[in-house]
Amino acid sequence: MVASYTRRTLLTVICEASIEARVVADARRLGAHGYTATEARGGGQHGERDGHWPMSGNVRIEILCEAAVADAIALHLQTSYFATYAMVCYLSDVSVLRSNKF
Amino acid sequence: MVASYTRRTLLTVICEASIEARVVADARRLGAHGYTATEARGGGQHGERDGHWPMSGNVRIEILCEAAVADAIALHLQTSYFATYAMVCYLSDVSVLRSNKF
Amino acid sequence: MVASYTRRTLLTVICEASIEARVVADARRLGAHGYTATEARGGGQHGERDGHWPMSGNVRIEILCEAAVADAIALHLQTSYFATYAMVCYLSDVSVLRSNKF
Repeated sequence: MVASYTRRTLLTVICEASIEARVVADARRLGAHGYTATEARGGGQHGERDGHWPMSGNVRIEILCEAAVADAIALHLQTSYFATYAMVCYLSDVSVLRSNKF
Repeated sequence: MVASYTRRTLLTVICEASIEARVVADARRLGAHGYTATEARGGGQHGERDGHWPMSGNVRIEILCEAAVADAIALHLQTSYFATYAMVCYLSDVSVLRSNKF
Repeated sequence: MVASYTRRTLLTVICEASIEARVVADARRLGAHGYTATEARGGGQHGERDGHWPMSGNVRIEILCEAAVADAIALHLQTSYFATYAMVCYLSDVSVLRSNKF
């Protein structure tokens, strides 16, 4: 018996904890079947002033899904949140077991 | 001097915190040399009813190892835990430094 | 409208929490624009004795950056910390939105 893998996309979103529930609800509506969240903090840049901008009270959300679903969620986040919220979003290719769940 | 990378597999397991010690012990026995754990929470599907199934008190375990070891661990998790426990398992390819450790 | 991705490198560093500030400062100086940190714990090997070496009070730092910046940071970590500190460092390829930020 061997492990049987399927390719899926892992979408990682880092954002303010205050919008976690909205992001997760959006992702479910666009086809995600589940998510994993961990508490995070960090720092980045802020606009023209390029100052260091602390981000405590952040959350790191991982969504394992089909590539087309990841694209739809990423596009939605870009159009709905990027202008207003601090948000980092990246995708990577992974191999999953139990692909029927994702 | 340049950084010298070796390809390894990053195996990520998300499961109930109550079985973390068993999963880590299994992984060690199958060849893993170390692991990293972070507290996590999330939600997924549950069987035929497709209800939203909250998963608090979860843990996200990362194991960096050779591809064959990752396969052995993934197969073991599939046969030993998938029927009974909520568990997500995925693999990705990464480049590591200090490959002698993994 | 479609999501527009750019390839970047995700550098993950797992180390003692006591050196987080130094590692982040080094990464910024070498070109990183931001980072995400999560609390972590784990275990690995320790030198010749191969004993199990608990690592509580650890931190998992993620830095999203250009490949050349990731290489520079990885090399710096290798030469500055590996001999003295418990540190795991790995790189993966990801697709990002808002590439101007990374």
